[in-house]
Amino acid sequence: MKPLTPLDNIRVVLVETSHPGNLGAAARAMKVMGLSSLYLVNPKCEIDDEARARASGAVDVLEQAVICDNLDQSLAGAVLSAACTSRRRDLPHPAFTPRQAAPELLSQAQTAPVALVFGSETFGLSNEQLMKCTWLLNIPTNPDYASLNLGSAVQVAAYELHCTLDDSPLALPEFQRAGHEEVERLMIAMEQKLVEVGFLDPVHPKRLMPRLRRFFARAGVEKEEVAIWRGIFNALNKI
Amino acid sequence: MKPLTPLDNIRVVLVETSHPGNLGAAARAMKVMGLSSLYLVNPKCEIDDEARARASGAVDVLEQAVICDNLDQSLAGAVLSAACTSRRRDLPHPAFTPRQAAPELLSQAQTAPVALVFGSETFGLSNEQLMKCTWLLNIPTNPDYASLNLGSAVQVAAYELHCTLDDSPLALPEFQRAGHEEVERLMIAMEQKLVEVGFLDPVHPKRLMPRLRRFFARAGVEKEEVAIWRGIFNALNKI
Repeated sequence: MKPLTPLDNIRVVLVETSHPGNLGAAARAMKVMGLSSLYLVNPKCEIDDEARARASGAVDVLEQAVICDNLDQSLAGAVLSAACTSRRRDLPHPAFTPRQAAPELLSQAQTAPVALVFGSETFGLSNEQLMKCTWLLNIPTNPDYASLNLGSAVQVAAYELHCTLDDSPLALPEFQRAGHEEVERLMIAMEQKLVEVGFLDPVHPKRLMPRLRRFFARAGVEKEEVAIWRGIFNALNKI
Repeated sequence: MKPLTPLDNIRVVLVETSHPGNLGAAARAMKVMGLSSLYLVNPKCEIDDEARARASGAVDVLEQAVICDNLDQSLAGAVLSAACTSRRRDLPHPAFTPRQAAPELLSQAQTAPVALVFGSETFGLSNEQLMKCTWLLNIPTNPDYASLNLGSAVQVAAYELHCTLDDSPLALPEFQRAGHEEVERLMIAMEQKLVEVGFLDPVHPKRLMPRLRRFFARAGVEKEEVAIWRGIFNALNKI
């Protein structure tokens, strides 16, 4: 059995969704970020073939969805709920971006259910529904075109939760760096060859070697690469 | 007129997309985060009614899409390109998450075009295509179900760029990168010289060119450095 994670305690609540494709897209968006608990409040469409097609490998999430008559039912037991909405400055609710909200949502979800709530494609959430939630969740968007697709909104929120939980940054490709002396010897050998072949004028060297050094420092030289560069510069020697 | 932002210099390149719905979803995902420059490389479907329906208010992005025959065309002039792919530990290219990559992508995009590259729904990007890009972009996902929808991948990457631009003042680029064609021509010239001088056996090339490509991708090639490397490899030619 897999150990439980806070993601297992996070529900995605879709209110009065009208397009089956969005149900499927939301399920896939959830599963790909490790969420599995889907609640549908008074859905305006069926879980049909289109929904299943868009869900792709996340049909299980779709088929295990809990259908509710109203928002309160879907929030039963949740200790924190964040309602996704475009900026509503007329509402006094605490409003956060997904990045701001994620740590506390996850923290709470370690011990109790937490909900992300998304309104219908056309009407969003009513004021009454918004006020039932703990927080407003504002996904930053282009002020000139803020029409985020429902599945995309779920994707972005789920992504933030996944990243925040997983926040050990992805390591750079691991490689064994060459030691200082090796690199230094390589630089000196390079310089000698460049002088020998007439590419570098020792009387007027300009900035060639400083530039090459900067280049190699920026790249970082792997142990195995030293031999490659030695070989290439040895070939220069054959002029 | 609106002031230009770095987002105006960021291209989304979709390679061999096969579902019209994903073209539309990508266009909408872009516009909602302030991106507008869409390139389609050898698309396997038409911009049809389904594409326009899914694009919703972003039909303009779809209709202004630049159609290209190959990846090189779509990267023309780009100084930095990040290829979205699931973790590919067999490939030696520098790999970053969208969050890690966003600051440098935006920094470069202040002065020159930058590209995000996405492969086909079924096959992703080929090794050859990946090696032509500067970086790999790994969106963190559920290890048990990593099948991110194409439109969702565009959404997540665009969201990160939008948020990063919102969150922090941009640094100036540390150096002016050479464009894609210059670097690509340099790689091809290098390979030819290495074959000519007998350093690279075209019948048994092993991993020399991938390693060199990795090295240059890691360093990032400055505009002025292209001439230096051309000179050095020209000297190899004089055997």
